[in-house]
Amino acid sequence: MNAADGQKIAMRGAGYYSANTAGAKNVIDKVGDLVVKAVAKMPRLADGLPFAIADFGAADGGTSMDMMRRLVGAIREAEPERAISITYTDLPHNDFSTLFRLSQGLLGTSTEVPLAETPGLYIFGSGTSFYRQILPDNSLSFGFSATAMHWISKRPCMIADHVQAVGATNVEREQFRAQALRDWETVLLARARELRSGGRLALANFCVDEAGRYLGHTTGIDMFDTFARLWRDLLRAGRISETEYVNATFQQFYKTPEEFGAPFRDPASSVSQAGLRMETMFTIVTPCPYAEAFRSHHDAEAFAKAYVPTLRSWSETVFANALDSSRSAHDRSAIVDELYGAYEAEVARAPEGHRMDYVHCVTEIVKL
Amino acid sequence: MNAADGQKIAMRGAGYYSANTAGAKNVIDKVGDLVVKAVAKMPRLADGLPFAIADFGAADGGTSMDMMRRLVGAIREAEPERAISITYTDLPHNDFSTLFRLSQGLLGTSTEVPLAETPGLYIFGSGTSFYRQILPDNSLSFGFSATAMHWISKRPCMIADHVQAVGATNVEREQFRAQALRDWETVLLARARELRSGGRLALANFCVDEAGRYLGHTTGIDMFDTFARLWRDLLRAGRISETEYVNATFQQFYKTPEEFGAPFRDPASSVSQAGLRMETMFTIVTPCPYAEAFRSHHDAEAFAKAYVPTLRSWSETVFANALDSSRSAHDRSAIVDELYGAYEAEVARAPEGHRMDYVHCVTEIVKL
Ligand SMILES: C[S@@+](CC[C@H](N)C(=O)[O-])C[C@H]1O[C@@H](n2cnc3c(N)ncnc32)[C@H](O)[C@@H]1O
Ligand SMILES: C[S@@+](CC[C@H](N)C(=O)[O-])C[C@H]1O[C@@H](n2cnc3c(N)ncnc32)[C@H](O)[C@@H]1O
Repeated sequence: MNAADGQKIAMRGAGYYSANTAGAKNVIDKVGDLVVKAVAKMPRLADGLPFAIADFGAADGGTSMDMMRRLVGAIREAEPERAISITYTDLPHNDFSTLFRLSQGLLGTSTEVPLAETPGLYIFGSGTSFYRQILPDNSLSFGFSATAMHWISKRPCMIADHVQAVGATNVEREQFRAQALRDWETVLLARARELRSGGRLALANFCVDEAGRYLGHTTGIDMFDTFARLWRDLLRAGRISETEYVNATFQQFYKTPEEFGAPFRDPASSVSQAGLRMETMFTIVTPCPYAEAFRSHHDAEAFAKAYVPTLRSWSETVFANALDSSRSAHDRSAIVDELYGAYEAEVARAPEGHRMDYVHCVTEIVKL
Repeated sequence: MNAADGQKIAMRGAGYYSANTAGAKNVIDKVGDLVVKAVAKMPRLADGLPFAIADFGAADGGTSMDMMRRLVGAIREAEPERAISITYTDLPHNDFSTLFRLSQGLLGTSTEVPLAETPGLYIFGSGTSFYRQILPDNSLSFGFSATAMHWISKRPCMIADHVQAVGATNVEREQFRAQALRDWETVLLARARELRSGGRLALANFCVDEAGRYLGHTTGIDMFDTFARLWRDLLRAGRISETEYVNATFQQFYKTPEEFGAPFRDPASSVSQAGLRMETMFTIVTPCPYAEAFRSHHDAEAFAKAYVPTLRSWSETVFANALDSSRSAHDRSAIVDELYGAYEAEVARAPEGHRMDYVHCVTEIVKL
């Protein structure tokens, strides 16, 4: 992937991400059932080889920690003596220290035995894009990924009058779609090389579902339209330039279930030829935990204060990086603060309809 | 290891370390010859298994990058198709992002092809103390470590009137020695489990050599005595408290060649029983590159400005962490700046005799 683009997909470090992403954790916990069942279907490995797990696009590993405990438990139940490895992958600039500290119980207040204390479990990080091969050929038993592969490898163009492909013109959107379909093939072929025969992938990816729903667009207000409008307000107010306005373009695309499945339906595709088969596919909507909480507490201000930071955790670098590099750090963060401040004020004033429901397409894939 | 102690061994991040440690790189480059020869002696692995390399206590991986290129080249020459993995290990709070970026050519100005672009080479990080097992049983082909294992797993006591065990009282020093000997056994037993049969370790550890030399104590001025004296000056000036003075204690011990070899000479030791044999041991003094440069340029101020930062890169956290936690961040860094400022002024005023020659004990160890 393009290094300069890669730099722009950054999340805030030091545990900020996990603490503010209860929704992301809920999704992973749901996929946990499927993951545990998948282990039972896996062929036994030769003696002495570790059961190798990877979490692709893991951020600080916090949201998948409980799922990993279950997965490791299921493997140990089947084969008590088997060594297990977990490789957490993300982009090179990811905060791997937080990941290692979390897994070793050096952060947070959990009273559980730290994951890294599990005997015979070995934890690694790899700061290598999932658009490349990360693990040696035929070494991976189980690959997992949640809410990461909507980040495409590069932006084919800027979206002139919106921030995300969902609001782009048709011409812009088709360029994003073409990039996303190429990227999906690249991700799958890299995983096909890594997987052992009989190895599996469980992927929970953002999607546009059968009913046209997607992240922050289920019922009520469209989250990306809100971002686009508030960003446009900063342009109108003369706070940002036209170029800065256009440059705020999420390097993302939400595929449909149809698009996720396409390479598997064609037996001549490179993905099918590489031995990958799709076993399961379904979509799930995970209700926004903040909007749900608001329905019981009815405190609009508290809702806004809890809700907007979770949006900010994954979106702010897109706006910060859209700003001209000649601006001072102070100026940049002031503008970004204004954007989220406006969002928070809007939610506090008129909370109804704001919700970031997650819309995922879950796929289970096996390598023959 | 004790987590609280572990936190205190921290290096400055973002490439600061490598850029200021020309000496450390020189040592590794010297050990490179031995490393390349070691590869030729290794038994062939079964098909499909990767040649697994680890660098224990690698910091940002910058100083060993050239050596790794040579090592990878030597493996590829012997077995062109063999997959290779490098696991860079350090403490959890190490700056792994810089490591991944360096290896992918995303930092610095090197015109060489980035190490991570080598086909069939897979790079991982592990933020796990080398006093624990880091890799699965029987999986490691070649373990390397430079200038890291003098950091012991905990401080048995504070050194009341000096900063390092070399200047401690006999009673204090014996406590450090006992801890260091236990730690050496722990490190070796963990590596014995990780190594495959026929696998090797090449370790370049700081030592007190046959002539009583050690880091910064070869000819001329003793570096640790200088640290202790300048720190005492801050106590006398009322700038730091008695407790802060005492707390500046390096969690380090320099063993003698005799001590490195002891577990190998006793066939009944747990290390010998675990199948480890020492094949080679020698000591080397690596001249301080800054003092050498001074001998030709004679510019005392330039010398001081280049020399003191390299000391600072590995030592400053010891002084910063000795300061009372009630002090403001600003106050702490002002005191630390004063210490290194005083050191720099002293070197600029009277440059003769200041030099941080490295004194290493190199060992090559094989697992039967
Ligand atoms: C929304 S977070 C998801 C974190 C976690 N998997 C979860 O579900 O909570 C998306 C992550 O994907 C990572 N990411 C984006 N593009 C990537 C790529 N090409 N390779 C690896 N990780 C990537 C981001 O850096 C980020 O940490
Ligand atoms: C002086 S640096 C050496 C870096 C590099 N190997 C070189 O030779 O240039 C020492 C490194 O050892 C690491 N270290 C200290 N104690 C450690 C431990 N118990 N486990 C792993 N790394 C440790 C430190 O964090 C630091 O990065």
